[in-house]
Amino acid sequence: MAETAAAIDQELGKVLPEKEDRRGKLIKSLRYSAIGGGKRLRPFLAMQSARLFSVPQTQALCVATAIELVHCYSLVHDDLPAMDDDDQRRGKPTNHKIFGDALAILAGDGLLTMAFELLNRPDTGIQPEIRSELTFELAKSAGICGMIGGQAIDIQAQHQPMALSNIEYLQALKTGALIGFAVDAGPILASASKRHRIALARYANALGLAYQIIDDLLDTEGDETDVGKQLRKDNNAGKATLVNALGVERAKDKARQMTEEAVLSLKGFGPEAQLLREVATFLFSRTH
Amino acid sequence: MAETAAAIDQELGKVLPEKEDRRGKLIKSLRYSAIGGGKRLRPFLAMQSARLFSVPQTQALCVATAIELVHCYSLVHDDLPAMDDDDQRRGKPTNHKIFGDALAILAGDGLLTMAFELLNRPDTGIQPEIRSELTFELAKSAGICGMIGGQAIDIQAQHQPMALSNIEYLQALKTGALIGFAVDAGPILASASKRHRIALARYANALGLAYQIIDDLLDTEGDETDVGKQLRKDNNAGKATLVNALGVERAKDKARQMTEEAVLSLKGFGPEAQLLREVATFLFSRTH
Repeated sequence: MAETAAAIDQELGKVLPEKEDRRGKLIKSLRYSAIGGGKRLRPFLAMQSARLFSVPQTQALCVATAIELVHCYSLVHDDLPAMDDDDQRRGKPTNHKIFGDALAILAGDGLLTMAFELLNRPDTGIQPEIRSELTFELAKSAGICGMIGGQAIDIQAQHQPMALSNIEYLQALKTGALIGFAVDAGPILASASKRHRIALARYANALGLAYQIIDDLLDTEGDETDVGKQLRKDNNAGKATLVNALGVERAKDKARQMTEEAVLSLKGFGPEAQLLREVATFLFSRTH
Repeated sequence: MAETAAAIDQELGKVLPEKEDRRGKLIKSLRYSAIGGGKRLRPFLAMQSARLFSVPQTQALCVATAIELVHCYSLVHDDLPAMDDDDQRRGKPTNHKIFGDALAILAGDGLLTMAFELLNRPDTGIQPEIRSELTFELAKSAGICGMIGGQAIDIQAQHQPMALSNIEYLQALKTGALIGFAVDAGPILASASKRHRIALARYANALGLAYQIIDDLLDTEGDETDVGKQLRKDNNAGKATLVNALGVERAKDKARQMTEEAVLSLKGFGPEAQLLREVATFLFSRTH
């Protein structure tokens, strides 16, 4: 994961070159929230799913970087005072705390737009029909039927009790959809068989749910310096999380079960899927 | 233009079908700011530039709708309290006044993302390599080297005097880039000759600048009910507009000159370019 993170940082540095120009702090604001930080889980998943099918690394890296740009944009907008109002992200002040709300809104917009530009650059080595398919799937997973839809439910549900099935639906959209696309990127790049895509979709669903529960568990039990953002906010805000709905022990059981399901869904793959198996168990090992 | 506007509304209605679901008011918020309103100038330009090359209308309509989605998103974010803080848009309250800041941010994000999804739908009849080229060019014109870059300069320049050349640069990014893409859409869809693309780029540059000056003139001289948004804000905020920099009369001269330049740049085209010529003179006729 550290290797992927370093490669992504390098790509982002190329896509967002630092320079003084009339746009003032705009580029600084994008760079601040994109470069140097985060586990880069989604890019890692994209790189590994591409590896299963021996996709050229430059192609995988392009898609992985686009996915991370979308993830970073969502964090910048999510942290805004009008949204979750967070002060800390990835161990440093949130974007709007440094650059103000207006530039944070524009930085988010810029990161999102850059993802689609990057994915459709003519020099990536990815065939045009694959570029278009990737763009279509990325936009769907990030859009109103995916991530944005999940965030909208999240915002409107605050301070309201929510049924377990609704919380799962919310998480599937908010976090699951983009993780799903990251895992789908490999088979799309390789025009792989439907059987492989279905197996990997099963993996992504289980991993996405496990990841969200683990994130919520860390919010409840974790250490702020360790996690890099303000904790215990969700609990205080009475937010609809699976941990709040199930209680810590049952939530941990569910995360364990989903982790096993993720590993199991890869049984059709050989040793080339080892890191996808390990990342699932690694994420679970972060809970206490 | 009214015909195009009606067709765009119909397309947007299909892309954003009204329905009750767990996402609450999200779809309502997108529909509120996308459907029914605005002159639809950019879609009109895209439809007419496609007509020059006999591009099938369904293909042109797809791109025109994607451009309008991008334009609508930019208005929603631009109107936010953290940005321009506007209360009125297209003759009705701005999105955040109705749905709150959080849903307005998400609606903007959703409209932008939907543009890229729409453009890459497999059922549009547009060839994949053209879809990818359109996506690349749309993302560039909307991104940090285009519209977002212009907005960033605009925000940071408030209450600061700005040189005329800088104001022109700001406008070229903020309004010019997306208008430029709209006019470029036709030749891209038709894989037209470089000569045609250059002539149309000249048209778009002149029209874009004329349009911005006319918009600023209407802000200074216009009637609020007529224009559909709060006026005289730019002047009060000491904003860097060409009208503030040149004065009303010289600005009007410049707009006239750019209108003539736009018409002149189409001399290589026949009667099929008549509406592109007329829209330039129509826009100018709106000034007093």
